[in-house]
Amino acid sequence: MTEPEDGAPERPARRRGRPARAAAEAGPGARDRILTAARTQFAERGYDKASVRAIAKAAGVDAALVHHYFGTKEQVFAAAIELSFAPALTMPDALAGGGAEVGERMARFMFGVWENPVSRPPLLAIMRSALTNDTAAAVLRGLIERRMLQRLAGELSVPDPEFRVQLAASHLIGIALLRYVIKMDPVASADTEEIIAMVAPTLQRYLTQS
Amino acid sequence: MTEPEDGAPERPARRRGRPARAAAEAGPGARDRILTAARTQFAERGYDKASVRAIAKAAGVDAALVHHYFGTKEQVFAAAIELSFAPALTMPDALAGGGAEVGERMARFMFGVWENPVSRPPLLAIMRSALTNDTAAAVLRGLIERRMLQRLAGELSVPDPEFRVQLAASHLIGIALLRYVIKMDPVASADTEEIIAMVAPTLQRYLTQS
Repeated sequence: MTEPEDGAPERPARRRGRPARAAAEAGPGARDRILTAARTQFAERGYDKASVRAIAKAAGVDAALVHHYFGTKEQVFAAAIELSFAPALTMPDALAGGGAEVGERMARFMFGVWENPVSRPPLLAIMRSALTNDTAAAVLRGLIERRMLQRLAGELSVPDPEFRVQLAASHLIGIALLRYVIKMDPVASADTEEIIAMVAPTLQRYLTQS
Repeated sequence: MTEPEDGAPERPARRRGRPARAAAEAGPGARDRILTAARTQFAERGYDKASVRAIAKAAGVDAALVHHYFGTKEQVFAAAIELSFAPALTMPDALAGGGAEVGERMARFMFGVWENPVSRPPLLAIMRSALTNDTAAAVLRGLIERRMLQRLAGELSVPDPEFRVQLAASHLIGIALLRYVIKMDPVASADTEEIIAMVAPTLQRYLTQS
């Protein structure tokens, strides 16, 4: 279970320290480089196999600097998936105001993110990490709760708005799983419009009908 | 990427052979012991890390006998998940005849399988394997298509019955993911009756309304 590649065990005293000089030496773009390297590492290797040391190496900095900026591996992962999730986190804006087409807007929003070849791989990687590692699942859960569900639920005027939003989200997540991961036909090759036409009324009911 | 624990590379000549004498020596219960050991291995280690050699060892037989009975590691996996999926594969019977409550019956069926502490772990393990390994995903896809969707679709009198069944299944799979894997509240701790009451009308619409 221990991760020998992680730089932390070699220098425990500096793990949570403040290597201000190292930060200055690494230059002003170091934080962004670490974040980009972390996203790539987690996407390619999954949470279990990604290591702070390899992220630091890819970013051209010392592992201590990664810990300085982000804390533990778990916190690096949280920051990296927040970056990967940035497009998905704008969903509450897409649904603002509710209304007659909120179900369709939610479905369109989901396919907009998943059909995009830039945003799909990191989303897939996060799902895989969350499914195989409890820490990654907890981080993803926290992000979705804090940044998406609470805001979304605030937009709705139905009883149990968080429960309703989760039911709607579960449907879209399940479709994403069948279509993009298991790749099961006919859902995998169906036109997105065809799926949206079937699914939008379901989401509409969950999000607006009490 | 190579799997050093797998016995196959050490004895390629016997891999697909017919060790009839070994089968006779291993006794009449050998096939079942292998299957049970395979299910445990895949559930505990996932598809990638499970090995034919370890399965053979746990079953008290030679690795060649595993290949003799089941073929490749992929085929052992197929047989093992077919065993794990046995309760889920009775779903078509549960939905036979369609009717006014078919949506509710499908939802109840799903929770019956997932809330059962005996059937949940192997299902979770299969989902994890399918999400992280393309071969496992293909095996699971084939099993669901062959054993579940085709028969289910035959029970329905709507256009595109397989598409409809997949939409319904995707919703239940997404709920299982949020509830049992990501463990996100309120769906994770909601009463199953509360979820069924919301979800059954959705499934009913997919399965019966053209």
